[in-house]
Amino acid sequence: MNDIEISQQTTLEPIEKIAAKVGLTPDQIEPYGHTKAKITLPLKNPKTSGKLVLVTSINPTPAGEGKSTVVVGLGDAMNQAGHSTVLALREPSMGPVMGMKGGATGGGYAQVVPMEDINLHFTGDMHALTEAHDTLAALIDNHIHQGNALNLDPRQIVWKRVLDINDRELRQTVIGLGGRTSGVPRQDGFDITVASELMAVLCLSEDLSDLKERVNRILIGYNYDREPVTVGDLKVGGAITLLLKDAIKPNLVQTLEHNPAIIHGGPFANIAHGCNSVLATQTALQLGDYCVTEAGFGADLGGEKFMDIKTPVLGKTPDAVVVVATVRALKYNGGVKRADLTNENVAALKQGSVNLKRHIASMQQYGVPVVVAINRFTSDTDAEVAALTKVVTELGVAVAPTTVWADGGAGASDLAAKVVAATQQPKDFHRLNPAGTDLMTQMTTITQKIYGGARVELSAKAQRQLKTFAKYGWDKLPVCMAKTQYSLTDDPHALGAPSDFTINVRELSPRLGAGFVVALTGNVLTMPGLPKHPAALDMDIDADGKITGLF
Amino acid sequence: MNDIEISQQTTLEPIEKIAAKVGLTPDQIEPYGHTKAKITLPLKNPKTSGKLVLVTSINPTPAGEGKSTVVVGLGDAMNQAGHSTVLALREPSMGPVMGMKGGATGGGYAQVVPMEDINLHFTGDMHALTEAHDTLAALIDNHIHQGNALNLDPRQIVWKRVLDINDRELRQTVIGLGGRTSGVPRQDGFDITVASELMAVLCLSEDLSDLKERVNRILIGYNYDREPVTVGDLKVGGAITLLLKDAIKPNLVQTLEHNPAIIHGGPFANIAHGCNSVLATQTALQLGDYCVTEAGFGADLGGEKFMDIKTPVLGKTPDAVVVVATVRALKYNGGVKRADLTNENVAALKQGSVNLKRHIASMQQYGVPVVVAINRFTSDTDAEVAALTKVVTELGVAVAPTTVWADGGAGASDLAAKVVAATQQPKDFHRLNPAGTDLMTQMTTITQKIYGGARVELSAKAQRQLKTFAKYGWDKLPVCMAKTQYSLTDDPHALGAPSDFTINVRELSPRLGAGFVVALTGNVLTMPGLPKHPAALDMDIDADGKITGLF
Repeated sequence: MNDIEISQQTTLEPIEKIAAKVGLTPDQIEPYGHTKAKITLPLKNPKTSGKLVLVTSINPTPAGEGKSTVVVGLGDAMNQAGHSTVLALREPSMGPVMGMKGGATGGGYAQVVPMEDINLHFTGDMHALTEAHDTLAALIDNHIHQGNALNLDPRQIVWKRVLDINDRELRQTVIGLGGRTSGVPRQDGFDITVASELMAVLCLSEDLSDLKERVNRILIGYNYDREPVTVGDLKVGGAITLLLKDAIKPNLVQTLEHNPAIIHGGPFANIAHGCNSVLATQTALQLGDYCVTEAGFGADLGGEKFMDIKTPVLGKTPDAVVVVATVRALKYNGGVKRADLTNENVAALKQGSVNLKRHIASMQQYGVPVVVAINRFTSDTDAEVAALTKVVTELGVAVAPTTVWADGGAGASDLAAKVVAATQQPKDFHRLNPAGTDLMTQMTTITQKIYGGARVELSAKAQRQLKTFAKYGWDKLPVCMAKTQYSLTDDPHALGAPSDFTINVRELSPRLGAGFVVALTGNVLTMPGLPKHPAALDMDIDADGKITGLF
Repeated sequence: MNDIEISQQTTLEPIEKIAAKVGLTPDQIEPYGHTKAKITLPLKNPKTSGKLVLVTSINPTPAGEGKSTVVVGLGDAMNQAGHSTVLALREPSMGPVMGMKGGATGGGYAQVVPMEDINLHFTGDMHALTEAHDTLAALIDNHIHQGNALNLDPRQIVWKRVLDINDRELRQTVIGLGGRTSGVPRQDGFDITVASELMAVLCLSEDLSDLKERVNRILIGYNYDREPVTVGDLKVGGAITLLLKDAIKPNLVQTLEHNPAIIHGGPFANIAHGCNSVLATQTALQLGDYCVTEAGFGADLGGEKFMDIKTPVLGKTPDAVVVVATVRALKYNGGVKRADLTNENVAALKQGSVNLKRHIASMQQYGVPVVVAINRFTSDTDAEVAALTKVVTELGVAVAPTTVWADGGAGASDLAAKVVAATQQPKDFHRLNPAGTDLMTQMTTITQKIYGGARVELSAKAQRQLKTFAKYGWDKLPVCMAKTQYSLTDDPHALGAPSDFTINVRELSPRLGAGFVVALTGNVLTMPGLPKHPAALDMDIDADGKITGLF
């Protein structure tokens, strides 16, 4: 059976029953159908905060790591062991769902459900963000068209448009054609919705007031005097915020084992910080004794940003970090080709495990206990799993193989025990870059301490920007590195754990609402395309509403 | 108090309670929050069909007619009189909400609520349509980009993109710029979502299977041999339909007097047929003894299309038609300027009432009883209302003044009694254009019998199209006239009831999924713009989520 078939054979429990498991009464949730709900905030009687477990991984490879699957299985295992655990996950973007197989709801017997709804429109958060983002874009162009009192330079508008669709055709456009009554011609383009700064803003907001303040701070462009212009200057922060009044509320669903999962927010982990919302994590911590959460891509991207960008807003740091690795992905890092990954190769595995070691060390630097989860595939041999276990154990780090795809929570009981034990160890959390550190120092520290590189070099443009940003007071905002997820370096083909390399920053992009500056290295695509055979071609729905072909 | 303040001071009943009023158990609805729900179809034990009341109006004027307000008030009045009545209304588009004051949820004490939600994201139907429409657009461009097996001519793609936003800047665009990896450059443009053929398709579908068949029939463009290419040829009808699996379900809300209202679908009344969904009307008829529904713009557009396009699919024709008129609007038709509309002017009123007479006669031709509702404004004098009442009475037509904005259902008790009486009269319904009539005959019949004109003239382009359409077998589809709503002619400034005029058709547009051919007269705008002072500038939301500035 495939993922959707497994999910469809399970009878879901009513969402009120899932809510009741964590003490939420029917008036504290807003149902969306019978198996999804939004949680009304603020919570009436929040518990003291639970323990926080962050799940991250090695650099993703085409071999697949299954991080979300491990998160779901770990949560189910912890609940099986009697620890009240609530998941906090990211919302999938619909664009990729239509393009390539692979939703973001876990897999096999470690899934969150209803998977069709979560992978499609869910509770409408993504659509609300699209609408809010593009309404702001329309208001900007209308302002220019109607007299341009703010003196906005149409060549310096930085607020593009978005759609939650993989549509390469819209990457670069010319708009405002058609003469005097149809706007002002200018160059523009569309990003995918999860790349919108509004998504990052939503995920970092503490409440509606904070959301509105952040929206008002968003940079929309520059005037003809090269001065920055914000949403606040345009006086539409209230309208944009009210379009997000429901999207800001965390969504409650269940795992296949009927345990509570909060799924809310999903910013890109390259050009944004790649974690679910602060409100979702906070709510999960208040509802359970444990919250298991994840961060996008590998520990070098999502992990680092969770620690340095999210935890200061969250007001809580992880009690344990799980690094997910697979035998296959480490063999790939050790030089094995995709076609040969099913063949036993302990030597290559050992060679590739340097990637895992680097990520373990990165996370340990923050002063939190680390546990390694080996997400076992059927083709992994016992010798390989034993070898990998040995590598990790020799580092003094706890490690547990898991078989959650096939076995659900039962496949992660060992991992669950080790994670719970880890959360009871002493920790001494410290940020890598204390607040107020200048951008260049932050980038260098991340490059050296997380990526294992030597130095940062700025393009001529980035150097000019650094000077301008100092003038505007943006030079000490937290940095958000936009780097390929496939390598510790800025070259997607450099696998393993390279050293003595340079990170080349070509451009800086201020995200004043989110409160960080994005440092772009290499070419980061913010609007994906569809493949030659899009998944949409194989999807169908029958007369009774049963869906096939969604993965 | 304004509309939003009136709506906010009312305590809404839980949607389960509203559902129970019409015999729907909790498992027959899917709640969206506590005061909105989708109705699960098909209904388990549908009643025999109730009586159908269609509300339409004179040509809209800047003076305002308040058709939706009368519909809501009439429904409440009928419920007050003990007749179980369910409303079937159109969903508002969010684009105009951000632009100009005026949602589509009625006004004063005759509103459907929660008005903020209905006017904003509601249950996500509009967003699902946007996503489905633009996903199809992306799949088309991806097909061309990935080898173009269907030999599609990029210059002849008729499937544009949509957003539910008033954004003139996107009316005409060039897309696919940026080189080899970013698609194929071509001209394109965006319409507002309610103008999407998918909206018309959704509103005319009988169930999911019918929806999928209609989606597959949609014309997306032509190949280099000038042959039509459809969604079915692209093999993505299943994927597009599954994106609409929830949007096809009717939405249940309540009036301020806690009576059930179904709000579902809202196609443009010029380039589409302008009525709520067939499924919504059918469901309302099955749940109540009466269904009160509306059609967009005046009787010449929405009214005619309800009769000729919707009723054949609905399988039910109106038992009575209500034509809404106001003293102000008829004085405007009689030549009074907007600034002078509050001054008594019986002579101008009588002169302008020719517009009302034409619409009454139009609707009577279908063989159904007509009742006139005078939506009374505070500035209307008793002499004016008496004069208008006399004009209508002399035609042998029932007439009743209403004060629903100020009084809710109590302001339409007389109207309710007359409407109920009208539904008990014998009727002899006949369509204007029997199935199989050719397009030119259909257009001429509508022009002469509904508009009061003399003839139809086709542009050279439309003449060529008529020949091509015959070749493709599209020449006997029902016609859907796209005409200005402000006049019975194709000139928006020709008020009153002109005669001996020509309707000029400049272009024909096949909507094969909806199953009609649109005849475009004059310049019909399918993407509105924002005004100099958009309503968004005055909107706000406070820390508790209370919204202000939404009308």
